[in-house]
Amino acid sequence: MKLSHFALATAACIAAGNACAQSNVTIGGIVDINLAHGSGSIANKSFVGSSGIGASQLRFTGVEDLGGQLRAGFWLDSMLQPDSGAGTPTNTNNQASGGAAALAGSQGLTFNRRSTLSLGGPLGELRLGRDYTPSYWNLPVYDPFGNLGVGSTHTLNGAITGATGVRASNAIAYYYGHAFNAFATGQSLQGLNVGAMAYAGENASNAADAGSGNGASVRVGWTAPAWSVAAATGRTRNVAGDLRQTNLGGAYDFGVVRVMGHLVRDRNGAVTAKGYLLGLTAAVGIHQWRASVSAYETDAPGRPKATKLAVGYVHNLSKRTAVYATGAVIDNEGGAAFGLNQAVTAPNARSRGFDLGVRHSF
Amino acid sequence: MKLSHFALATAACIAAGNACAQSNVTIGGIVDINLAHGSGSIANKSFVGSSGIGASQLRFTGVEDLGGQLRAGFWLDSMLQPDSGAGTPTNTNNQASGGAAALAGSQGLTFNRRSTLSLGGPLGELRLGRDYTPSYWNLPVYDPFGNLGVGSTHTLNGAITGATGVRASNAIAYYYGHAFNAFATGQSLQGLNVGAMAYAGENASNAADAGSGNGASVRVGWTAPAWSVAAATGRTRNVAGDLRQTNLGGAYDFGVVRVMGHLVRDRNGAVTAKGYLLGLTAAVGIHQWRASVSAYETDAPGRPKATKLAVGYVHNLSKRTAVYATGAVIDNEGGAAFGLNQAVTAPNARSRGFDLGVRHSF
Amino acid sequence: MKLSHFALATAACIAAGNACAQSNVTIGGIVDINLAHGSGSIANKSFVGSSGIGASQLRFTGVEDLGGQLRAGFWLDSMLQPDSGAGTPTNTNNQASGGAAALAGSQGLTFNRRSTLSLGGPLGELRLGRDYTPSYWNLPVYDPFGNLGVGSTHTLNGAITGATGVRASNAIAYYYGHAFNAFATGQSLQGLNVGAMAYAGENASNAADAGSGNGASVRVGWTAPAWSVAAATGRTRNVAGDLRQTNLGGAYDFGVVRVMGHLVRDRNGAVTAKGYLLGLTAAVGIHQWRASVSAYETDAPGRPKATKLAVGYVHNLSKRTAVYATGAVIDNEGGAAFGLNQAVTAPNARSRGFDLGVRHSF
Repeated sequence: MKLSHFALATAACIAAGNACAQSNVTIGGIVDINLAHGSGSIANKSFVGSSGIGASQLRFTGVEDLGGQLRAGFWLDSMLQPDSGAGTPTNTNNQASGGAAALAGSQGLTFNRRSTLSLGGPLGELRLGRDYTPSYWNLPVYDPFGNLGVGSTHTLNGAITGATGVRASNAIAYYYGHAFNAFATGQSLQGLNVGAMAYAGENASNAADAGSGNGASVRVGWTAPAWSVAAATGRTRNVAGDLRQTNLGGAYDFGVVRVMGHLVRDRNGAVTAKGYLLGLTAAVGIHQWRASVSAYETDAPGRPKATKLAVGYVHNLSKRTAVYATGAVIDNEGGAAFGLNQAVTAPNARSRGFDLGVRHSF
Repeated sequence: MKLSHFALATAACIAAGNACAQSNVTIGGIVDINLAHGSGSIANKSFVGSSGIGASQLRFTGVEDLGGQLRAGFWLDSMLQPDSGAGTPTNTNNQASGGAAALAGSQGLTFNRRSTLSLGGPLGELRLGRDYTPSYWNLPVYDPFGNLGVGSTHTLNGAITGATGVRASNAIAYYYGHAFNAFATGQSLQGLNVGAMAYAGENASNAADAGSGNGASVRVGWTAPAWSVAAATGRTRNVAGDLRQTNLGGAYDFGVVRVMGHLVRDRNGAVTAKGYLLGLTAAVGIHQWRASVSAYETDAPGRPKATKLAVGYVHNLSKRTAVYATGAVIDNEGGAAFGLNQAVTAPNARSRGFDLGVRHSF
Repeated sequence: MKLSHFALATAACIAAGNACAQSNVTIGGIVDINLAHGSGSIANKSFVGSSGIGASQLRFTGVEDLGGQLRAGFWLDSMLQPDSGAGTPTNTNNQASGGAAALAGSQGLTFNRRSTLSLGGPLGELRLGRDYTPSYWNLPVYDPFGNLGVGSTHTLNGAITGATGVRASNAIAYYYGHAFNAFATGQSLQGLNVGAMAYAGENASNAADAGSGNGASVRVGWTAPAWSVAAATGRTRNVAGDLRQTNLGGAYDFGVVRVMGHLVRDRNGAVTAKGYLLGLTAAVGIHQWRASVSAYETDAPGRPKATKLAVGYVHNLSKRTAVYATGAVIDNEGGAAFGLNQAVTAPNARSRGFDLGVRHSF
């Protein structure tokens, strides 16, 4: 592969056709495609899926040193579906009306994974735009599967957490104790770290649901060389009942084996849910094993509960490329009917699934 | 500043997997995010917005020297909404049926800001694709706010100018006296400059509105070291009455202070509108101040008129990064009811708005 | 947190603001815009079109050497409509319900041209994702116009071949005798080459059309220095009758002149179609001429048949930039009513069309 210097320039100097100071755009991404299968008591599903162990993405990022310990940075990151080449819709207003459910099959690329502008200094980082909510972080950070693929933690339920259960648009966030312009998960520095975010639903002040989609989220953690803990909570206003996420997670690294877990307590209006995950990763050379058990239960009629057991193996062909296999089984109780990998299963029936794939980072 | 490395290659040599001559892609863009507020007599709006002083964008551009004073160039430029990560629809046929109004919430990235292919030589530049219409240029070029943010000139009214008030698709344009493959606004060379464009609505020849969306636009200007002037006019055919834009603008640079203004006269079928802007920018070191007054009035019943006063301050942290504050107030008369920053105000009521943000170019 | 969980070397070093290892992304593309005209007995059409001799595209690709003769590669390639800046929808399920017909005007960029992840070794290449079906290749490879523009072979009829007539999503493919991670058409190495693909419609197992969109396709060829031949066949299951494509193509290179041809036999349920193309390209220095005759006939009532004659000229201004002119005429029989360049012509009437444009590769 031939590599060459690549001059990048600001709008002004491109337009003028002049030689310009070199700038800083880094292009990267992940393509992760797998063979996926799910079986349930009602219907099975076999498909070519994506993002089994890495979130398929194309991103444009950069950091500028402003001098005086100040920095500016941006991050534009799209979620890809490389099995078909489709992009993924974003959510513009932190409510159902701003997302995929309100779009007639929009396939185009958006920077829905993250779209931010940051200013940083010794006191921390101000970050504007769309990003993970701090109250989401503990789920992927303390999940051996990083909330990806068939093995992902069962402690996240979009029907409970709503449009802001993972990310929020129109956000103003502050971070302390994290690498500047870092991706949310796993970039905490040693010692205390804090993330706080407020975000807007952007309804008109005279609307019936004026406050819906407004919210705030905060996470406080401590990172040591061998362990870390963090607690987080968030609330999004919703005309039909506010949405709340509260969770606590931690990990301890024994060397070859790293154990982790988290507890969650969510609320959607009058419905309360709780869940847990216990898991581990083990790495020897190019081999990595992963295992977890996670469960989630709501106090809706019947107290539906599901418990998932997942095991996985990652074979690293290089730092950038890996092949992997993940298997999971989910047990439903109390009327729950969760199917894995798009299988459909009857209430209280079991579902199984596996992913067999390749992940390539660039 | 840092340098990124990318491998670049032509289509042919990528495909063959061979080492190739270096190619020519420049990636750049702007992320501009702000806190925005508008207040009106009926409803206020607070939101995280974008493009307060810079048009948020991601673009891929390049120029090839063909020898013999000939050059080829391309420009693919998307309009970003970095507060949510969404892209913005384009308009495919220069009519309402080809744009956002006809799409069910399409969020995906398009190269709607500009998508062009150019061939240039000593006699000028031939440019094909989608770009600003020449009859739009005077509005941003002679507006201290560049027609961006809450302070943008009030002399552009999409309800009057229609789908081609800013850009046209399916265009063939000729430019003389402008830097090759330059962005439209403000890239005129010294002396005479000319831009002329024809564009197609692309209806079938037996359609009732066969000519709708067809149009032409021309701009002639003169640029001197300290001043510039330009006049432009354009017409788009429309089955319900043609759309016309005519305007005249100029600027004089006193050194620290630059004054500018423009006059517009638009027509949409039987409705005629006229407007003006007077403004200035003042720059001292890293500080820039902006101010303008602009007004627009139509001869529709009641002669609705609105007058906007805007002031702004830009604090440059570097050539690429700035923080800014802009405030504006608009007064409505004759039944006009323009609200700033999405506020809703009653006919003849006032509206106020401000933007407080960060712009980062890369 | 282990690096392999989420983040990538590039992400980490961006975040830290440090100088990083070189990245491995190749950005390239084509912008091809033309003036197009079609005339028919009912309606003519004049428009600014694209992709007259090059498929307008923006792509991100890369190859990683894994050692031990192993390689990984990715290819993300979008189809552009640079006359308007729009992208093009993909098809997510190899059925009509997964493509443009089911979307309300989605304009956003998708990687619909190709979106793949490859692992390669001495025994060949495993390729996952969306790509050309092997049973499509003979049409562009053995067409002087590469199935682009007004001169493109008439042997492809989407109404017969359905959603998988060109590409398939959710595919697992194997290639032997082709350059690694190469683009499909024309990248066969000397000697035997094989392509085989299976793809999934991804319906639930209890759906009435459970198997629709599932399919397989295979192509076997031989490439010598001066000639090549290949035969291919494919079938996509469809609840209303399976879709089949079978074809055979070959070319011989006499030096200045290269002759080529192909035969096709398609089936859509009970309808069978057959077609042929005979063509040549001739290149002297920067000049290239192209000509072809192609025809397609189905056994639907009346045995509709159309025969197209096309001639073209390409003037290469450099390896990357060319201007071109193509003209074509189509004769309809048996009730066929094909119009060129969006013209509308009556059954059994003639249609003419031309493209006059510029292609720039980057």
